[in-house]
Amino acid sequence: MQDEGAPQLTQAVLQSFSGAPDPRVRTVLHQLISHLHAFVREADLTMDEWHAAIDFLTRTGHASTATRQEFILLSDVLGVSMLVDAINHKGHTGATETTVLGPFYVGEHRVTPHGTDLVPGAPGERVFVDASVTDAAGRPLDGAEVDVWHADGAGLYDVQQPGYTPGEPAMRARFVTGADGRFNFRTLVPCSYPVPTDGPVGELLAAGNRHAMRPAHIHFLLRAPGFEPLVTHVFVAGDKYLESDAVFGVKPSLIARLETRDDATWPDGTPAPARWHRLAYRFALKRVP
Amino acid sequence: MQDEGAPQLTQAVLQSFSGAPDPRVRTVLHQLISHLHAFVREADLTMDEWHAAIDFLTRTGHASTATRQEFILLSDVLGVSMLVDAINHKGHTGATETTVLGPFYVGEHRVTPHGTDLVPGAPGERVFVDASVTDAAGRPLDGAEVDVWHADGAGLYDVQQPGYTPGEPAMRARFVTGADGRFNFRTLVPCSYPVPTDGPVGELLAAGNRHAMRPAHIHFLLRAPGFEPLVTHVFVAGDKYLESDAVFGVKPSLIARLETRDDATWPDGTPAPARWHRLAYRFALKRVP
Repeated sequence: MQDEGAPQLTQAVLQSFSGAPDPRVRTVLHQLISHLHAFVREADLTMDEWHAAIDFLTRTGHASTATRQEFILLSDVLGVSMLVDAINHKGHTGATETTVLGPFYVGEHRVTPHGTDLVPGAPGERVFVDASVTDAAGRPLDGAEVDVWHADGAGLYDVQQPGYTPGEPAMRARFVTGADGRFNFRTLVPCSYPVPTDGPVGELLAAGNRHAMRPAHIHFLLRAPGFEPLVTHVFVAGDKYLESDAVFGVKPSLIARLETRDDATWPDGTPAPARWHRLAYRFALKRVP
Repeated sequence: MQDEGAPQLTQAVLQSFSGAPDPRVRTVLHQLISHLHAFVREADLTMDEWHAAIDFLTRTGHASTATRQEFILLSDVLGVSMLVDAINHKGHTGATETTVLGPFYVGEHRVTPHGTDLVPGAPGERVFVDASVTDAAGRPLDGAEVDVWHADGAGLYDVQQPGYTPGEPAMRARFVTGADGRFNFRTLVPCSYPVPTDGPVGELLAAGNRHAMRPAHIHFLLRAPGFEPLVTHVFVAGDKYLESDAVFGVKPSLIARLETRDDATWPDGTPAPARWHRLAYRFALKRVP
């Protein structure tokens, strides 16, 4: 055989895309093909390994549904999501740092009143999230939309729970800030939990002898006209997985302290349980350049 | 922000897999993550492009079914399949060269008698495939199993046709060689045809301004005890797409001439149509080392 290492093959593939009308498509495909072929050559991939890769990708696609995104999870555990995040959020002076969207954002677009308990009636300790939205200089933003979502005490998002009914969200809400830029709500204290391990990504973590845990956090997606959307989490200080998040999402500026309280009333004046918590955070948005 | 180019992130991801018990898993994941992160950095991938990639991969998974493998097709059009083939078939002295399996191998494991017409009753010119299976020294192999599959005059494999019934194959058979190593069959003359373009891979080809055509060929998968399985095609000489196969699968040694004949009988002595063709090929298998 001529072409033992198949350099001509790689050249032929690159050449085949050289007529792409969009120069960005041409550039990205050139870089993708170069790295993909270099990886296959370096790894000296066997036919069986190639078959295993095809099977892994196919099952990752099949595991992705309306309420679960296994390819996002794969991107997360390989650090690709946080890398794309880092590349796209350079120089965020004064603005809140970003982190992964995660695979469980499905949105809840009905506006929820401030103070609402996101899991009414469910047993477990409550946290009062007392937050505000400002610009990078600290000026309050009126009418900012804030989507919130988090997992329950068993580590499951509403869409993962048996008997989940679309259109009946739990631990998921949208708030709109007032003129003071503030919003608040009550919910269960979040806890650390594993990413789903019953799919192909679980197999990958097991093959790497990696744990699947994420430190306790609440997801936030904030939007205001004239500002860049902010996708982030607030992590709970003291969590044992802050240094080894399965998706590499922790940034020190996103960690907040859970303050334990025994006041007889919530900050909004309604009667509180004997023991509750407060988590305060200010989100600063970056103006669209 | 510290860590602008996020080199610490890549180190953290590599480190997270350093405890993989299998050294091969460790090595391959290290190479994969290094190239994947280098690609994302070089491409300076935007959030929208990352979302588009997640969506593309997800739809590629969803397009993959029991009778269609869109990830294999993706691997094919990116030249990855032929690269893996090249890496795994170095030094095939005397043995027939290999090429891609393609996305339409579903197997037909019932043995078919020699001489069978694979598309009985279908209109169109016939070719008599007159083949033999030998070792690399040319000695005939008795009892070799030969799986054959190809597309019809419209470029469709049986599994792609409307009304396809599993278990009722067309243009798909398994032959077993006799003591002389020979097998033969009749079928429609294959023609060049496009790979499926109604899925994500079709979008990729369109974005690259690439044609989707494959030169006319018949697929063969050959197995014999003590020999390596041989996955290959025989291409029809003179086809206009031999130089630009959409999946980069052509090797000169796999091209055979279609000999046009007007003998009144087929080689097996039965009455032949006024005009038919003969395609002769000898497959040489490589002994397992």
